[in-house]
Amino acid sequence: MKKYEIAVIPGDGIGKEVVPVSLKVLETVAEVHGGLKFEFQSFPWSSEYYIEHGKMMPEDGLKTLKNFESIFLGAIGNPALVPDHISLWGLLIKIRREFEQSINIRPAKYFKGLKSPLVNPNDFDLIVVRENSEGEYSEVGGRIHKGEDELAIQNAVFTKKGTERAMRYAFELAKKRRGHVTSATKSNGIFHSMPFWDEVFNVVKKEYQDVQTASYHIDALAAFFVTRPQIFDVIVASNLFGDILTDIGGAIMGSIGIAPAANINLNGKYPSMFEPVHGSAPDIVGKGIANPIGQIWTAKMMLDHFGEEELGKKLLDVIEDVTNDGIKTPDIGGTSSTEEVGDEICRRLKKAVSV
Amino acid sequence: MKKYEIAVIPGDGIGKEVVPVSLKVLETVAEVHGGLKFEFQSFPWSSEYYIEHGKMMPEDGLKTLKNFESIFLGAIGNPALVPDHISLWGLLIKIRREFEQSINIRPAKYFKGLKSPLVNPNDFDLIVVRENSEGEYSEVGGRIHKGEDELAIQNAVFTKKGTERAMRYAFELAKKRRGHVTSATKSNGIFHSMPFWDEVFNVVKKEYQDVQTASYHIDALAAFFVTRPQIFDVIVASNLFGDILTDIGGAIMGSIGIAPAANINLNGKYPSMFEPVHGSAPDIVGKGIANPIGQIWTAKMMLDHFGEEELGKKLLDVIEDVTNDGIKTPDIGGTSSTEEVGDEICRRLKKAVSV
Ligand SMILES: CC(C)[C@H](C(=O)O)[C@@H](O)C(=O)O
Ligand SMILES: CC(C)[C@H](C(=O)O)[C@@H](O)C(=O)O
Repeated sequence: MKKYEIAVIPGDGIGKEVVPVSLKVLETVAEVHGGLKFEFQSFPWSSEYYIEHGKMMPEDGLKTLKNFESIFLGAIGNPALVPDHISLWGLLIKIRREFEQSINIRPAKYFKGLKSPLVNPNDFDLIVVRENSEGEYSEVGGRIHKGEDELAIQNAVFTKKGTERAMRYAFELAKKRRGHVTSATKSNGIFHSMPFWDEVFNVVKKEYQDVQTASYHIDALAAFFVTRPQIFDVIVASNLFGDILTDIGGAIMGSIGIAPAANINLNGKYPSMFEPVHGSAPDIVGKGIANPIGQIWTAKMMLDHFGEEELGKKLLDVIEDVTNDGIKTPDIGGTSSTEEVGDEICRRLKKAVSV
Repeated sequence: MKKYEIAVIPGDGIGKEVVPVSLKVLETVAEVHGGLKFEFQSFPWSSEYYIEHGKMMPEDGLKTLKNFESIFLGAIGNPALVPDHISLWGLLIKIRREFEQSINIRPAKYFKGLKSPLVNPNDFDLIVVRENSEGEYSEVGGRIHKGEDELAIQNAVFTKKGTERAMRYAFELAKKRRGHVTSATKSNGIFHSMPFWDEVFNVVKKEYQDVQTASYHIDALAAFFVTRPQIFDVIVASNLFGDILTDIGGAIMGSIGIAPAANINLNGKYPSMFEPVHGSAPDIVGKGIANPIGQIWTAKMMLDHFGEEELGKKLLDVIEDVTNDGIKTPDIGGTSSTEEVGDEICRRLKKAVSV
């Protein structure tokens, strides 16, 4: 029996609605697998927690989390309660950093049963490998002067180590997929960091002669996500560029509400964290209509991470079938509730695996 | 008789094909106007010029350009000949900087006769005001250490003055349009510069009580360009964010090849520069099939800048009609040559104005 202890942080807003439904799906996965057991422990850390305690998590929060196999996160952030930079840097980004989750991976693909805003979304299937520990997201910088003369300086830090790590991850992934890596750069406009990025890419790609490569500036690349997403397999991008591309990835699938993500710790010292791309969507809280697919697909990425790729694939097939059969939430054109979608996925998963 | 002396830099690749056609259109504009005269002086500064002279323009190039009313630029850059950062920072970005062209404006709209990749491109009509002098495009930064330990630091510099200037420009523009400004931020992830950007926006917007505002993080905003571009009127963005959004803007219109741009000098000390969004497209050079619409629409923006907005509007209507009637280049589904498109626009412009 393989046993996984998982820290669950539902977080804010719809996180608290889609996480429970996804845990039910994970229970069902364990049930149909037979040799798998999940132990969930839930933590109430969120913007509401901040209001009460003046911090996003207890002092020893990281120490507590460290003992788990992985972290399953809903959504963090509710600007009406707590400013974003406090809630996010106090929990989400803090965990990414402190637990050296140096890679963020986010797939986007043509999804049956979803209305893509694109005329031709057919058969695109890509994955963005986002550098997740440095780059444009850096606390280095500050301000000087007051009044009219005030200015802010933001440093983006790109280390050889961090850059290579993301690129190697992308190449390894490409070898298991269609063997193509695209680098997202902007070396024609961003003077220091992006030529460095290109140099590292040109060195790393020599180690992978069997993988094809391309390199596009982020402006053109973002446009290609709209005009021909089919040309991409694996894309490697900086923290910011990966952030932007993956929201567009969600959009072209037909909803950001279904896009999944994984923050991967590579050195084995800390847990990895699984959280969907979407936010806490305070506007639809309490209506029971939050789309659980992003969170459930994120659970699938956690299964992959545990080496349960076969079952993961089955789960994704089931999600797609359920969507295609119209059992879906209003945001993607259905009339089902969050729970109904989750329950149907559990039901079909049992059927699919027992066959 | 109003006389404008215009410096023409066809530049690289298809720049040399679309610029002459656009000059013919401008000649026609002058002809039908009656009281308008353009004097064009052409400069061969380009990547080829660099190969011959070791620089992108002569030492006194800027001094020469300074005397003109405006600069009409084709495209710069041909990585096969000269690395991008040399060609672009030696000419395009150099002129933007040295001539204090602090604002870059780029419209995108539903365009008759073009196949948008979007299922629903109907009636979107937006304009991006891009800060064009600082931000992420900064020569401040560098590298330290060698080998495994090497790292690059890139500084993004946001001054109160530069940020306010772009925002005020956006608000003034919105007052002449539909009265709505959207700020492109990323203050949840970019720690120093973007909260500063938000603060400045929140102050400036108070000066424009009659203008509605919204603020989105760049990831969500880029996705909205795909899912609902109709919600936007004027968008104000940093140098990098504006760059990314305007390529997506081109994409959703149906082709980056038609997107126009203007680099505006606001203090009257230097000429403004007009250049389309697309690049030099070396792959289609010499075939006579380059799409001239981006460059011609850019000429229209120059007319607007000269205060000839009525004629500018007529020109854009003609461009759209010609496109809608199928007289268009292969990249947008036609069979016409660069010249044929230009000639037809001239012919119809004469007819439209004589009526
Ligand atoms: C060529 C490049 C430096 C330039 C930019 O990023 O500004 C281009 O993409 C543009 O948008 O004009
Ligand atoms: C909330 C925000 C800080 C975060 C990011 O930019 O990383 C989010 O957009 C994401 O993509 O996970």
